[in-house]
Amino acid sequence: MTPKIDADSVLVDAKLLEQFVVTVFTILGLTEANARDAAAVLVKSDIYGIESHGVPRLAGYVRRLKSGDVQANPEVEVVRELPSTALVDGANGLGMIVGQRAMEVAIHKANDTGAGFVSVRNSSHFGIAGFYARMALEHDMIGFCMTNVGSGGSTPPTGGRTGFFGTNPIAVAAPTNTPPAFVMDFATTVVASGKLQIAQRRNQEVPLGWIINGNGVPSTNPAERHGGGYILPLGGLKETSGHKGYGLLLLVDILSGVLSGAAVGATASKLTMDGAEAERARSDGAGDNTGHFFGALRVDGFRPVEEFKAEMDEMFRVIRSSEKLPGWERIYVHGETEWEAERDRLANGIPLDLPTYQSLEGVSADLNIPLNVKM
Amino acid sequence: MTPKIDADSVLVDAKLLEQFVVTVFTILGLTEANARDAAAVLVKSDIYGIESHGVPRLAGYVRRLKSGDVQANPEVEVVRELPSTALVDGANGLGMIVGQRAMEVAIHKANDTGAGFVSVRNSSHFGIAGFYARMALEHDMIGFCMTNVGSGGSTPPTGGRTGFFGTNPIAVAAPTNTPPAFVMDFATTVVASGKLQIAQRRNQEVPLGWIINGNGVPSTNPAERHGGGYILPLGGLKETSGHKGYGLLLLVDILSGVLSGAAVGATASKLTMDGAEAERARSDGAGDNTGHFFGALRVDGFRPVEEFKAEMDEMFRVIRSSEKLPGWERIYVHGETEWEAERDRLANGIPLDLPTYQSLEGVSADLNIPLNVKM
Repeated sequence: MTPKIDADSVLVDAKLLEQFVVTVFTILGLTEANARDAAAVLVKSDIYGIESHGVPRLAGYVRRLKSGDVQANPEVEVVRELPSTALVDGANGLGMIVGQRAMEVAIHKANDTGAGFVSVRNSSHFGIAGFYARMALEHDMIGFCMTNVGSGGSTPPTGGRTGFFGTNPIAVAAPTNTPPAFVMDFATTVVASGKLQIAQRRNQEVPLGWIINGNGVPSTNPAERHGGGYILPLGGLKETSGHKGYGLLLLVDILSGVLSGAAVGATASKLTMDGAEAERARSDGAGDNTGHFFGALRVDGFRPVEEFKAEMDEMFRVIRSSEKLPGWERIYVHGETEWEAERDRLANGIPLDLPTYQSLEGVSADLNIPLNVKM
Repeated sequence: MTPKIDADSVLVDAKLLEQFVVTVFTILGLTEANARDAAAVLVKSDIYGIESHGVPRLAGYVRRLKSGDVQANPEVEVVRELPSTALVDGANGLGMIVGQRAMEVAIHKANDTGAGFVSVRNSSHFGIAGFYARMALEHDMIGFCMTNVGSGGSTPPTGGRTGFFGTNPIAVAAPTNTPPAFVMDFATTVVASGKLQIAQRRNQEVPLGWIINGNGVPSTNPAERHGGGYILPLGGLKETSGHKGYGLLLLVDILSGVLSGAAVGATASKLTMDGAEAERARSDGAGDNTGHFFGALRVDGFRPVEEFKAEMDEMFRVIRSSEKLPGWERIYVHGETEWEAERDRLANGIPLDLPTYQSLEGVSADLNIPLNVKM
């Protein structure tokens, strides 16, 4: 399942790549600890083979840090709480910093009471949701993470043609005895917008059911997503239960956005302020106001950890032993592809496509630091 | 969106129907309070227009109560707990009783700490998941409910052809100022098996993408689900992200089944005991061992309730004002169809299809009680 290395790929070393990203973030004003935390999220994405969310986005984070749209070292604050819940204000910080601080609060509360849930406002794009859900694993907890970031306006409600939702990912991680752990992490649209960008960059068609064009008709041309077209919710059109994906999109906006007071959907500013007010808030540095939602549940709040893990292993063994459909050689469990990519890429390097490598060269030139990352 | 009354429907009164079900359950040994609780879940389903889960299933519950497969008045017990979590043993009770007791535990814990999460083992089919999620609303909480019941073995993992999962529904309810509240409640397969049963009973084709036949090929004939065919996970085949639905199916089995020690998937007995052992356990009255998962989060653990509700209203106003796709006159929010059906059916009666009405006549004759439920 690891993407193949094509002629236009550059093979880079994970450790060197991470050091480059740490250096970039440090130059942009992040403390050493924050730079390491932020770099870990980005590079893990590339290590896991999630091409849409790793260093291909570094240039974007750099731009936003330089412009002051996002804060390098936010004072992330718990502004309201109960023993098992908290509202966290991200102080308009870099999402990868805010996300880790907020998930730590959820884990701390779960440690005390069995469950910890945290809704976050005033944050920004935080990379892969799965990173934060995974943080629960070493504590023998089940981790949850959602965010309403991601191309706000990419998806309309079922039956509609006004983009409202972002790609609103949901991630859940649960421990096993035998690696890999269960880690599901996906956009609640049919696909993440990053995957459409990749298909468009490579001039590839996409499967029918991913997008509708400006006339509301399903299309296989990723470019038709623009000009009035949209990504569909998971499930596609109504007849194949796209309203269920629409429900999941709403769920993410409710828990990450409405519950925290973050922006909601593409029309966020309409919800709480008029256009002029929204404009003023932006120029005051209010930024994205992206929302996140984090959760942790102690496994031993329900059942002894060892029993739970043994039964997870056994369930996955049975699932993997399913008879296969024609053309299938293996049954995967969520987290397995990433785990195999990790072992492969840590040993053999990460293949970056040429546009991504060139974007790193751009960052290198811009900040006047060397790019020594090749294997 | 309310199903139309066709020539073969019988119009019944909601109150009379509920009284009939209470009488049935009382005769079968339930206490008055338990009979009322159980009847409420069933009849609410018919009131909401969810035809697959209401009194059409009454005869099945009657059969299982009479045979002793499920207990009428279970001693539902918290067997392990932390301030915000609990493991509940359902004592092999009727699911509607176990479900309400367990959700009450989740709400109680959320009241104390902000969050309450309960995993349940040794239960049985509990009707609509949305009923339990809705219980949180009057406490200004967000409610969650899942169950791994429902035709275990109806769905294989992505790429597989061995049925493993039930239809594994997820329900979430969140309060608003202006009714209806947000209530999403759906199978994490493309459709609930009840909907396929209805289509098959009525000789109707189903949309492409709902099922694969015994050769692993998508089919529009609901009968082909049998004989080696299966319902697909939400999202359909892999190319339209069926692996996401597969992830949600797993999530429900992890939280309802593995976390509680309930049966998991169709092959549950393989997981924890060999065939002979499973057989012995069943004859000892161990029954279904269905698992459920319940959760409640206090809205004011994150944000003042009035702010939250006002913003929910405003979000839904914006969503409903979306431009419509051709052929669409309205945009619905989850819970709206059920709310409109409720107002209509409480005033004008519930249309039961003829096979359902005849099944009630069968129960009436079997238990020797009158069926006076017509409008």
